[in-house]
Amino acid sequence: MNYVIGIDFGSESGRAVLVDSENGDIIKVAEMTYPNGVLTKSLNGKPIKANMVLQNPNDYVEVLNATIKTLLKETKVDPNNIKGMGVAFTSCTCLPVDQQLTPLCNKEMYVDQPHAFAKLWKSHSAEKEAQFITEKLADHPYLGKYGGVISSEWLLPKLLEISNDTPALFENMDYFLEAGDWIVSLLTGKVSRSTCSAGYKGTWQKKDGYLDKEILHSIHPSLADVYTRQLKGEIISVGCSAGTLTPYFANLLGLSENTAVGASIIDAHAAVPGAGIYKPGILQIVMGTSSCHLLLSEQEITIPGISGVVEDGILPGLYAYEAGQVAVGDIFASFIKNQVPTNYIQESNERNLTVFQLLNEKAETLDVGETGMVALDWHNGNRTPYVNSNFSSVFVGETLQTEAHEKYRTLLEATAFGTKVIVDLFEEKNIDIHQIVVTGGIPKKNPFLMQIYADVLQKEILVVDHHQIPALGAAILGAAAAHDKADEKYSLNSAIQKIGFKDYIQYSPNKKHEKIYNKLYGIYRNLSHYFSSNDDFLTLHTLKTGREMNNGAKFMESIK
Amino acid sequence: MNYVIGIDFGSESGRAVLVDSENGDIIKVAEMTYPNGVLTKSLNGKPIKANMVLQNPNDYVEVLNATIKTLLKETKVDPNNIKGMGVAFTSCTCLPVDQQLTPLCNKEMYVDQPHAFAKLWKSHSAEKEAQFITEKLADHPYLGKYGGVISSEWLLPKLLEISNDTPALFENMDYFLEAGDWIVSLLTGKVSRSTCSAGYKGTWQKKDGYLDKEILHSIHPSLADVYTRQLKGEIISVGCSAGTLTPYFANLLGLSENTAVGASIIDAHAAVPGAGIYKPGILQIVMGTSSCHLLLSEQEITIPGISGVVEDGILPGLYAYEAGQVAVGDIFASFIKNQVPTNYIQESNERNLTVFQLLNEKAETLDVGETGMVALDWHNGNRTPYVNSNFSSVFVGETLQTEAHEKYRTLLEATAFGTKVIVDLFEEKNIDIHQIVVTGGIPKKNPFLMQIYADVLQKEILVVDHHQIPALGAAILGAAAAHDKADEKYSLNSAIQKIGFKDYIQYSPNKKHEKIYNKLYGIYRNLSHYFSSNDDFLTLHTLKTGREMNNGAKFMESIK
Repeated sequence: MNYVIGIDFGSESGRAVLVDSENGDIIKVAEMTYPNGVLTKSLNGKPIKANMVLQNPNDYVEVLNATIKTLLKETKVDPNNIKGMGVAFTSCTCLPVDQQLTPLCNKEMYVDQPHAFAKLWKSHSAEKEAQFITEKLADHPYLGKYGGVISSEWLLPKLLEISNDTPALFENMDYFLEAGDWIVSLLTGKVSRSTCSAGYKGTWQKKDGYLDKEILHSIHPSLADVYTRQLKGEIISVGCSAGTLTPYFANLLGLSENTAVGASIIDAHAAVPGAGIYKPGILQIVMGTSSCHLLLSEQEITIPGISGVVEDGILPGLYAYEAGQVAVGDIFASFIKNQVPTNYIQESNERNLTVFQLLNEKAETLDVGETGMVALDWHNGNRTPYVNSNFSSVFVGETLQTEAHEKYRTLLEATAFGTKVIVDLFEEKNIDIHQIVVTGGIPKKNPFLMQIYADVLQKEILVVDHHQIPALGAAILGAAAAHDKADEKYSLNSAIQKIGFKDYIQYSPNKKHEKIYNKLYGIYRNLSHYFSSNDDFLTLHTLKTGREMNNGAKFMESIK
Repeated sequence: MNYVIGIDFGSESGRAVLVDSENGDIIKVAEMTYPNGVLTKSLNGKPIKANMVLQNPNDYVEVLNATIKTLLKETKVDPNNIKGMGVAFTSCTCLPVDQQLTPLCNKEMYVDQPHAFAKLWKSHSAEKEAQFITEKLADHPYLGKYGGVISSEWLLPKLLEISNDTPALFENMDYFLEAGDWIVSLLTGKVSRSTCSAGYKGTWQKKDGYLDKEILHSIHPSLADVYTRQLKGEIISVGCSAGTLTPYFANLLGLSENTAVGASIIDAHAAVPGAGIYKPGILQIVMGTSSCHLLLSEQEITIPGISGVVEDGILPGLYAYEAGQVAVGDIFASFIKNQVPTNYIQESNERNLTVFQLLNEKAETLDVGETGMVALDWHNGNRTPYVNSNFSSVFVGETLQTEAHEKYRTLLEATAFGTKVIVDLFEEKNIDIHQIVVTGGIPKKNPFLMQIYADVLQKEILVVDHHQIPALGAAILGAAAAHDKADEKYSLNSAIQKIGFKDYIQYSPNKKHEKIYNKLYGIYRNLSHYFSSNDDFLTLHTLKTGREMNNGAKFMESIK
C-alpha cells in the first residue's frame, strides 16, 4: 500500500489528509486551528494599520507538525510507504524571511513589527500601493492577464507596502514568500515558488517571466531588483516535485527523506485536481460566500475582468483561467439576515426547518419566470467582467404583492446569470465549456440552486460532496511529485484519475426552462450593460461613502 | 348662528358633519356604515363577474337620512339655521335609475341583476370596454385631457359594459348617474350633474361638452344618443346651487325647504376647499394608500399621464388638474409586511413602538444620501406621467450590509421623487407651484416623511391634521350654494376662507439637503427614462402573468 499526504492551510486552521494513492480513499484527517489565530486589531497589544490582517507564521509549522504526527500516530502506516506530499495554501498569504527561511517576526528586533509577520490573503492595507501599481501598469500587456487590476491582496503591493512603511525591514529581508511556497521551501531545503502562486499572485508569466526591471523601477526604485532579490527562487510547475524532505523535517515529522514534495498550489485551485478534473472544457466553480471559476484550456485568450490567466497555473501544459463572482452565498446570507419577515421565521421554527430550507421549498413551487423579477448579483461589486467594487445590486420587478421567497428565488437566479456571463465570455472566444463541476459549501446543501444553474446554463452540473477537496488536490500533487522523474504530465493525469473525486451528484438541464431563462438572462444583460456604462453607481457610492472621508458639512459642499 | 351640513360618502361608510358657517367649527359628526357593505363575490348568493364591485344604492339614502337625523337630534340646532348642504362622493360610483330616479335594482325584475345595482368606483369589470374606448379615441383631442387613457372606473366604460352584457337593462334605464349626482338630484328633485363628476369621469368638457354623436356611435351604436338619454341632466358648476330641498326630503330629513344643495363633488377633490385652498399655485396632495394631486390654475396645458384637466372641475373659473401616484402608503405597508426582519419586530415590541415608528426613528438618523440607494416607486405601476400598469419597482444600490431602515428610507424618498416628477411637469410648462398642502391619513402620522417631501421638493409643505376634510369641503359647497344668487365666485372663496381648514403644520425645506436630493432625483429620472423606454417590464409582466391566461406548457411554447 502506498500513501500520500495533502495539507490544506486555510484562513483559520490547517488540515492534513492521509490518502490511499491507488484509489483516493481518505484514511485519516487531522485538523488544527492556528494557535495565534487571525490578528485584525492589534499585535502584542499595539494597534495595527486599518485593514491589515496578520498571522504568526510559526503557527503554520506547528499545524504541519502536529497534524502529520497525528496522521502517523493514529493510522500507524509505515512512513516509507508515504511517497509524496503536497501543500495547498490560502493565497496570497505571504511573509518576509531571512536567508535561512526564518520569519523576520522571530527576530528580537521585529517581535512588535506587524510587517515582519505573515499577512493573510485578505489583508487589504496595501490598497494605496495596489492602485498605484495598477496605474503604473496601465498600458502594460500583463495587466490584461489579470483583468486590468492588480489587487491589494497580491505579492507586489504587499511588498511595496513594506518598502513604503518600513524601508529598513524591506532591506533586511532575504525573501518575500507566499506561505505555501515557504512551507515547500522549508520542507525541501531550497527556495522555490510554484507556477500557481507566482503566476496568479506574483505577476509572473511562463513566457516572459516577471515584470522587467525598468517598469519595476518606475513603480518604486526599491523594487527595481526585487525579482533577483526578495522574490527570487526557482519557479516549479504545479504537478512537479520541488524536492524531497530535508533530514531535519523528515526527522521532525517522522517521515522518510525520500518523500517527494510537490510544488505548492493555491487552495481554491487545488480543487481542480481534487475534484477529478484533468482536461480542458470543464469549468470548476468553487462556490461559497463568493464563487471562484477555474477553467483549463489549450488556448490563451483575453477575458475582461479575469482574475488571472496563467500557463501551467494548475496543470502543466495548459492555460488556467480564474474568474470570479465576489458575492454568492454572501448574498443569500444577507437576504436571510436582513429581509425575511417574521412569518417565515415562525413557519420555519414550527416546521423544524432552517429558513433556507423553507425558502427553497416555497421558491421551488414557482414556475420559471413567475417571480416577474430579475436582479443583478452585484451586492459586493463585480469582478468578472467589470472589475468594479463600487457597483451594487439592482432589483427589478417588485410589486406590492412580492413575497420573500420570490425575492430569494430571484437572487438565486441572479447568481446563476452572473455565472452565465462568465461562461459566455469563454464561449464567445470559442473556448468550449461542456460541463460544470461545483465544489464548496453551498452546492451540496442546495440542490434547488444547482438545478437552477443547470437550467440557466443549459449544461450538466456535477456537484462534489466531499469535505476535503483542496487537501485531496494537494495529496494528488504529492503523488505526482513522487512520479516526477518518469513523465510529469502523464503521471499527474493518472494521479488525478486515481485519487481525484469521482462520485458526482449530477444535475441535468431541463430543456423546457431554456427559453424563459434566456428571456430573463436577456434582461440581466440589459441591466448589466446599462448600469456598467453610466455613473449612477459611482454617484450612489460617493454619496454613501463620502462622509466616511470628510465631515458631513464639507462633504455636502463638495457635491456639485 | 348659521350652519351648513357636509356629507361625505366613502367606500364603506358615509359621514355627515354639522359645521358653523362663520368659523368652520365642526359641531357634530355622525357616521354610518353601509348596511349592505361592499359586494365583490356574489349578489343574493349568486356569483358576480370578476373584478365587479357592487353596492346597494338604498344604503346611501339610509346613511343620508340616519346621519342627518343624528346631527339634528344630538345638537338640537334650529333646522331653519341650516342654510345649505353639500355632497362629496367616491367616484366614479354610478348607478342606473328610472325617470323617478328610482334605482333599477329596486324593481322586482332586477333584484338579482348585478348591473342594476351601484358599481363602486373600484369596480374594474369594464376593463375590456375601457381599452376599447381608449383605442377608439386614439386620435381624439379629449384623450390628452385624461392622460391618454379612459379608465375602466369611469362612466362611459361602465355604461358600455351594461350595454354589452344586458342590452335590455341598458334600454330600460332612464339615467345613468354618478351616485353623488344622484343624491343631489334626489334632494333637489331635478336631475343635475356637477362639472366635477362630469368633467373627470364623464368625458365632459366645459368648452366642447360631451363627446359627439359620431364618435360615440363608432364606439357602439347603442351609445350614439347616450348624452341626450342615459347621461342627460343639467351640468352645474361646483360651488353653485343645484336647487333647494324638495318638500319630501325636507320633511324626511327634518330640514327646511329653503336649504340650498350644492352641486356634488368627488371626495378627493372636496379636500381642496376643505383644506382651505381657493387660489392657484398650491398643490394639494391627498396621501393615503395612493396619492391624488390636485392643482388649480388659470391656464390649460397638456400634462402626460394626467388623470384629468377640467375647467370648473373644483372651483368655478379655474382649470383643475388631477394627477396620481398609484401607490404610496401601499408601498410602505407592503414593505412592513414583507421585508422587515425579526430583530426590528422584536425591538419595536420591546420598546412599545409601532414598526413604522421604529423604522422612522432609525431612518431619520441617516444623512441624506447615506443609504446609497434609489428606488422607483412603481410597485403598482405608474399613473403620471407614463400611465402603465405593467410597470413595477426598481431598487438600485443595495449591498450585503443594507438594512431594513435604509431600504425603508429609500422607499419614502422614492415616493417624494414620484411627486417631484409631477411638480416638474407643471413647472416645466410655467405653471407655478409655490406651496404644497397635504391631507389624508399618512401625513399627520409621519412628520419624517413630510420633511423628506419638503427637502426633495424644496417647497413649503402644509399638513392638514383633520379627520373630516372632504366632509368639510362638502359643507363649504353647501355654504356657497346658499349664497349662490349673490356672487358665486366671491361667495365660494369667502366660504373657503371662513370654513376651510387653517391650522396647518408647516414643514420648511432644508436648503442644505437640496444638492444631494437633486443628485438622487437625477438617478430617479435616469431610471424612469431607461425603464419606461424599453421592454424589460413588459417581458417581466408577461412572464409573471402569462400563466394566469394560459396553462404553463402552452405559455412556455408561446415565448419566443
